[in-house]
Amino acid sequence: MPGYQAPVDDAMFLLRDVFHVERYNNLPGFAEATPDLIEAVLAEAAKFSEDVLTPLNRVGDKEGCRRHDDGSVVTPTGFKDAYKRLTAGGWVGVSAPTEFGGQGLPVVLAQAVNEFLCSANMAFAMYPGLTQGAIAALLAHASPEQKALYVPKLVSGEWSGTMNLTEPQCGTDLGLVRTRAAPQTDGSYKITGTKIFISAGEHDLVDNIIHLVLARIDGAPEGTRGISLFIVPKFLPAAGDAHGSGGLGARNAVSCGSLEEKMGIHGNATCVMNFDGAAGWLMGEANRGLQAMFTMMNEARLGVGVQGLAQSEVAYQNAAAYAKTRLAGRALTGAKFPQQPADPIIVHPDVRRMLMSIRAFNEAARALVTWIALKSDIAHRSADAKERQAAEDYLGLMTPVIKGVLTDQGFANTVMAQQVFGGHGYIAENGMEQFVRDARIAMMYEGANGIQALDLVGRKLPKDGGRALQGFFAEVSAYIKERGGDKEMAVYVTPLGLALGELQQATMWFLQNALGNPDQAGAGATDYMHLFGLVALGYMWCLIAEAAKTKAAAEDGFGERMTQRLMTGRFFMERMLPAATTHLARIKAGADSTMALPAEAF
Amino acid sequence: MPGYQAPVDDAMFLLRDVFHVERYNNLPGFAEATPDLIEAVLAEAAKFSEDVLTPLNRVGDKEGCRRHDDGSVVTPTGFKDAYKRLTAGGWVGVSAPTEFGGQGLPVVLAQAVNEFLCSANMAFAMYPGLTQGAIAALLAHASPEQKALYVPKLVSGEWSGTMNLTEPQCGTDLGLVRTRAAPQTDGSYKITGTKIFISAGEHDLVDNIIHLVLARIDGAPEGTRGISLFIVPKFLPAAGDAHGSGGLGARNAVSCGSLEEKMGIHGNATCVMNFDGAAGWLMGEANRGLQAMFTMMNEARLGVGVQGLAQSEVAYQNAAAYAKTRLAGRALTGAKFPQQPADPIIVHPDVRRMLMSIRAFNEAARALVTWIALKSDIAHRSADAKERQAAEDYLGLMTPVIKGVLTDQGFANTVMAQQVFGGHGYIAENGMEQFVRDARIAMMYEGANGIQALDLVGRKLPKDGGRALQGFFAEVSAYIKERGGDKEMAVYVTPLGLALGELQQATMWFLQNALGNPDQAGAGATDYMHLFGLVALGYMWCLIAEAAKTKAAAEDGFGERMTQRLMTGRFFMERMLPAATTHLARIKAGADSTMALPAEAF
Repeated sequence: MPGYQAPVDDAMFLLRDVFHVERYNNLPGFAEATPDLIEAVLAEAAKFSEDVLTPLNRVGDKEGCRRHDDGSVVTPTGFKDAYKRLTAGGWVGVSAPTEFGGQGLPVVLAQAVNEFLCSANMAFAMYPGLTQGAIAALLAHASPEQKALYVPKLVSGEWSGTMNLTEPQCGTDLGLVRTRAAPQTDGSYKITGTKIFISAGEHDLVDNIIHLVLARIDGAPEGTRGISLFIVPKFLPAAGDAHGSGGLGARNAVSCGSLEEKMGIHGNATCVMNFDGAAGWLMGEANRGLQAMFTMMNEARLGVGVQGLAQSEVAYQNAAAYAKTRLAGRALTGAKFPQQPADPIIVHPDVRRMLMSIRAFNEAARALVTWIALKSDIAHRSADAKERQAAEDYLGLMTPVIKGVLTDQGFANTVMAQQVFGGHGYIAENGMEQFVRDARIAMMYEGANGIQALDLVGRKLPKDGGRALQGFFAEVSAYIKERGGDKEMAVYVTPLGLALGELQQATMWFLQNALGNPDQAGAGATDYMHLFGLVALGYMWCLIAEAAKTKAAAEDGFGERMTQRLMTGRFFMERMLPAATTHLARIKAGADSTMALPAEAF
Repeated sequence: MPGYQAPVDDAMFLLRDVFHVERYNNLPGFAEATPDLIEAVLAEAAKFSEDVLTPLNRVGDKEGCRRHDDGSVVTPTGFKDAYKRLTAGGWVGVSAPTEFGGQGLPVVLAQAVNEFLCSANMAFAMYPGLTQGAIAALLAHASPEQKALYVPKLVSGEWSGTMNLTEPQCGTDLGLVRTRAAPQTDGSYKITGTKIFISAGEHDLVDNIIHLVLARIDGAPEGTRGISLFIVPKFLPAAGDAHGSGGLGARNAVSCGSLEEKMGIHGNATCVMNFDGAAGWLMGEANRGLQAMFTMMNEARLGVGVQGLAQSEVAYQNAAAYAKTRLAGRALTGAKFPQQPADPIIVHPDVRRMLMSIRAFNEAARALVTWIALKSDIAHRSADAKERQAAEDYLGLMTPVIKGVLTDQGFANTVMAQQVFGGHGYIAENGMEQFVRDARIAMMYEGANGIQALDLVGRKLPKDGGRALQGFFAEVSAYIKERGGDKEMAVYVTPLGLALGELQQATMWFLQNALGNPDQAGAGATDYMHLFGLVALGYMWCLIAEAAKTKAAAEDGFGERMTQRLMTGRFFMERMLPAATTHLARIKAGADSTMALPAEAF
């Protein structure tokens, strides 16, 4: 049975010592979030994740969700109780506005909580995660009446939310959406069509499910400019009124047609949803549904990136525990425990290599999430327009990097952690193979990672004349220049400088080669995203190392952990950052050999 | 429902045009294997794989194997019939000696057949695969009487074989084996103990199962020098005589205690086997069981490497088919099919990148298997001792490379192929996620890949004063020198020269740094194995490119496919071989940061 211990100390170290969260006290919600309160919230989230959600992870995987003939869906044993405790703790609305019943705490804190929940039980954590996505969409685009009707019930967790985008013939290319919306005389619409891959589309955890649905109003233009976003509740608001009391009225004509049988996240109900003239209400402007979706994608994609980190973390913890107890062979440098029949496998360099690789990634990835979640807070809460814009720049630029790199590498890390177990990693009851299967989806949904790479290279780089990218380059360059003379930091700063140079070369190569032939950028996009990720993670390691050095010198009792951090960072710089060179070489190879073959040759 | 078409043409091209199999006509079994016969055998194997085994792959995954209370095990629907057709076709004994009823054909042909079977249905193919392993062990170590009794029944497929090595407390470290063998007055032994992870340990496909079991004779030395290998049949030979007629006698005291619930290969029964004083007969010398195992490991590990390639190939084929039909978005360079609502996704450079990466790997990996399987034939069949030794050198050196690299990259390729499907890759009925789950085991069993890397660096490099490695370096260097002036080949030969230089640097670094501290080699072993693999695959691409150039010029009808091969090879050289640089950088980073942390820090 796999275990999990939430990394509260790491999260606190990042918030307090690396990113100095107290400096943001001028932002709404931050003054209340004192270090003591943050630590209390994280400790409570840790307890809930470890004690309630972790034991249900394998249960959810084994049992999965079951659909009855009437279209109702039952979640695995224990999920209902756990969900009650989740809502009782106020966890759905951690960062939701207080005016709608939320706790109004910073997003940066909510993302730390999110990581713990996802490590403990990713399939379960998706239920509140999707609700949080629906809340964000409603807050950004719904009318005041719609907000008043839906948001409080979602924030409390009494109702849950979904996103209905994908259809059998279209996923990424939402211009192909066929679901129709027929205007009614009362201002509502009748929604008709089939949506697939709808996570938490139907389940027994809540009284009502609020579907946000992309559909095409009759007569709307073809393609992406004719798509609108609708609110389609499972139960109509009482008295058939969209702006009623919030009580439950008639059952709407939306139902779960079947559940997908899938590789993992079995505890989450992945539904085919049938809309048979279901009553829906337009949210935001007609034909601007896609834009409405995009404004909330940053946060959703950040959340998916966190899923990658979360699975990597829990897989690491279990691999480390196994490596310390499983006996096989002797250390190459001579037996470390001669009184035992063999040494624990953690003495073997190749086992260390795997554990160090995962750990060095996780610590930097957690820092990157923290840094960018803080930018999200600034972007949404700062009173200073210039500060907001700068933060928005970082958020937009880093979102595809976090989503793509943290899920690609997070998945690879679960595979590596499973490898530490040898053949035992293949056995279901040891739990490692579930982490692999669950982590896999994060690379594909919420925009497959190839789409993230294209978003980064094709949209985020050129946006506003390259302002966001230049801002990032300027910050890292200034940092390297400033710290270049510090001998103790050279082991971190020097490799970062080399990798940044390679990233700048890659950017320049695109500028020089892709304008005339966009395939040159497309063929290098995934490598560019990973190269970008390496530089961002390398920068995080520099910030972590500085804080660790300071803390090791200043405080008692933390020295050892800080020294370990410094060594882990050195491992990252020596062993992981050099992959930047290969990414650059691939980018510079261009698109010719990638694109040369005719389609029928494949 | 995924499909599969066996790459008969590729296999023929490699055997005939790249490796000139007709040059080996002096070896037993090769003169009979004319190009026409080879093509007929491959075509027949293709038909069986495509028509019989492919449709059963998902059935096997869904149903899995079931164990009854009496310990008997039922295989999935259709497996029994398919197995009958397998034995009727003589496929178990393709390369087994004719004196035991085999076809005596070259191993290089058997491995090509093996790839087809594994692509179509890996879980099924393991049943004959394990029998072939048992045949190899018996041929190498059993007495003439034992061979006469067991080998013909195994070759015909009437009986099947297993390898019983692993126990709950030991896998890699077989010195910890606890299963006991008590000598009896009639020369037999009573075997008592528990073995786990026994593939095909119990099933309903055959009349009798011959277990080869590692156990410790009472009073034998501790550790690896006290382990012997035993033959333990499920049914005793008739009349209680080990050298009887081959009929079935009493049921032996060996039984399946349970089936493992695992990530994949559900169609293969992975058993816990209980030996309760089961009658067993010593095979080979007492206390030399491990050495007996090692002599047959090369072939078994080659076979597991082929499993990695096989899953990569079938995953590629299905991803390519999907990419040509799934519509989403428009080509970056302008719509390719403006009359359709969107272009097929194969127009997108990132989709191409994935498909080309898998394909460029598969074609070279198939060449590497062919090359080394030929060496296996020479090592076992040549009359010339020097030729045998040179071939044995290659076989020993390349076995861990093929096992480790082809399964690591083969798995990564199934993940990439699944990624081409986007979210649809996560859905069970599309079959892509099964390829991922099935391919995963090949990295862990038959020596986890970290063990392969250590075998390469710690045993195969220094063996015989480095003779095998020097032989390989000499061959590749001579090739590069010879072809260095050929301008048309420069796109292949120049990058190979750079990568070979990096491999030689890495080797030198080990020589200079690991003698005093073996952790320096251990920490770089996996990177060295992959660097080695890149050079070996790069060399294969050079040989393929030469043959393709010749064939494109000389023959009609093949030109297009040959041009495609040349371009695929260019992709490998430009986009995949550069990873060599990163591997070298990691190796040169040494073991310090890998080994620095105390175990309790993990």
